[in-house]
Amino acid sequence: MFDFTLYNYFRSSSSFRVRIALQLKNLNYEYRAIHLVKNEQYQGEYQELNPSSEVPTLVHQGQAIGQSMAILEYLDVVAPKPRLFPVDSMKAAKVRQFCETINSGIQGYQNLKTLKYLETHFHVSTEAKQQWLNFWIQTGFRSLEEQIHQTAGRFCFGDEVTAAECLLVPQVFAAQRFQVSLEEFSVCRRIAEACEGLEPFQKAHPFRQPDTPGEFRVC
Amino acid sequence: MFDFTLYNYFRSSSSFRVRIALQLKNLNYEYRAIHLVKNEQYQGEYQELNPSSEVPTLVHQGQAIGQSMAILEYLDVVAPKPRLFPVDSMKAAKVRQFCETINSGIQGYQNLKTLKYLETHFHVSTEAKQQWLNFWIQTGFRSLEEQIHQTAGRFCFGDEVTAAECLLVPQVFAAQRFQVSLEEFSVCRRIAEACEGLEPFQKAHPFRQPDTPGEFRVC
Repeated sequence: MFDFTLYNYFRSSSSFRVRIALQLKNLNYEYRAIHLVKNEQYQGEYQELNPSSEVPTLVHQGQAIGQSMAILEYLDVVAPKPRLFPVDSMKAAKVRQFCETINSGIQGYQNLKTLKYLETHFHVSTEAKQQWLNFWIQTGFRSLEEQIHQTAGRFCFGDEVTAAECLLVPQVFAAQRFQVSLEEFSVCRRIAEACEGLEPFQKAHPFRQPDTPGEFRVC
Repeated sequence: MFDFTLYNYFRSSSSFRVRIALQLKNLNYEYRAIHLVKNEQYQGEYQELNPSSEVPTLVHQGQAIGQSMAILEYLDVVAPKPRLFPVDSMKAAKVRQFCETINSGIQGYQNLKTLKYLETHFHVSTEAKQQWLNFWIQTGFRSLEEQIHQTAGRFCFGDEVTAAECLLVPQVFAAQRFQVSLEEFSVCRRIAEACEGLEPFQKAHPFRQPDTPGEFRVC
């Protein structure tokens, strides 16, 4: 029996964030795949759980929570070890600012729905789409890099993993997937690499999930 | 002497959210205007406070916080009455899910930077821009309406104001400004109207700020 059920998709950044948090907190969860490219998020049963038709959705004690930031905040209350948001309220605010720079400042511009809209309605070329991705992702990273240049230790805010890494690592993964250069963001890159060596991040990785297609799968 | 300084812009949705929170909590703050259309957010001094070159920024005890959600969470810890995020962790999760549906799901698509990008790089027509705004705002509201259809009392989550209204009211204001119909979202409209009758929401309104231009100003 599982305490948590996570509806998610192997490659979705927001899903990856929540998987990292669940792994960091060593929480057992049932994995339910929602295939975004097959539009399973629009099926009636799933829409009842998540009226935005998005992944991830976390179900706990019969109640469903959507939006990855809401899920991370919730997990930090019901399973506070290790903490994703520091106890110190100003430090927590800086962590949240960093997270939101990705969540509200980058994610929307790169997601499937938005890229589809640009193709279908604006008929943008492959090159114009690449410029759009470069612009929003690199603009976001410029701010992220600046935000942590004085706080970074081994990780973004000192030497402990926080929610910042739960968002940073999937965002670095997405940038690589979209072939957006992160060359100039050396602190962010160095921290993402440090995380990739840690078991919770490895277990949560898009290429190691039950719904990862064979061509992407790593052991 | 003020405890808080808020760098913001009269018409910015995210600024409006934070002003509502400050008013609800009856906190005294110094108002500093950053004129987005004049690109004051890109000036060096401001960029040091907010590396994303965005409003709002809240300064407290010499430290700057960007991102409206991070600011609301911070205010709820340092000035917990009245609470914006309920004590019950599942109820708080639902409030955060609602807030993020606006913050990460709608706001980015309607902000000045994005609309400028569509015009400058994709040369979209006025009509195509209006369809873009309709699509993202109405898709978001469809989810918001569904999220609160069982929880709404006088407000989104029962009979007390929460962070949900701090985000909902500025989003309804933005929809009206962009002439996006909210006709079918009767619960959201009813709650936004109820809020508009309350003093904290009135004081925080874009048309009653020090930097509100004369043609918009109301008494």
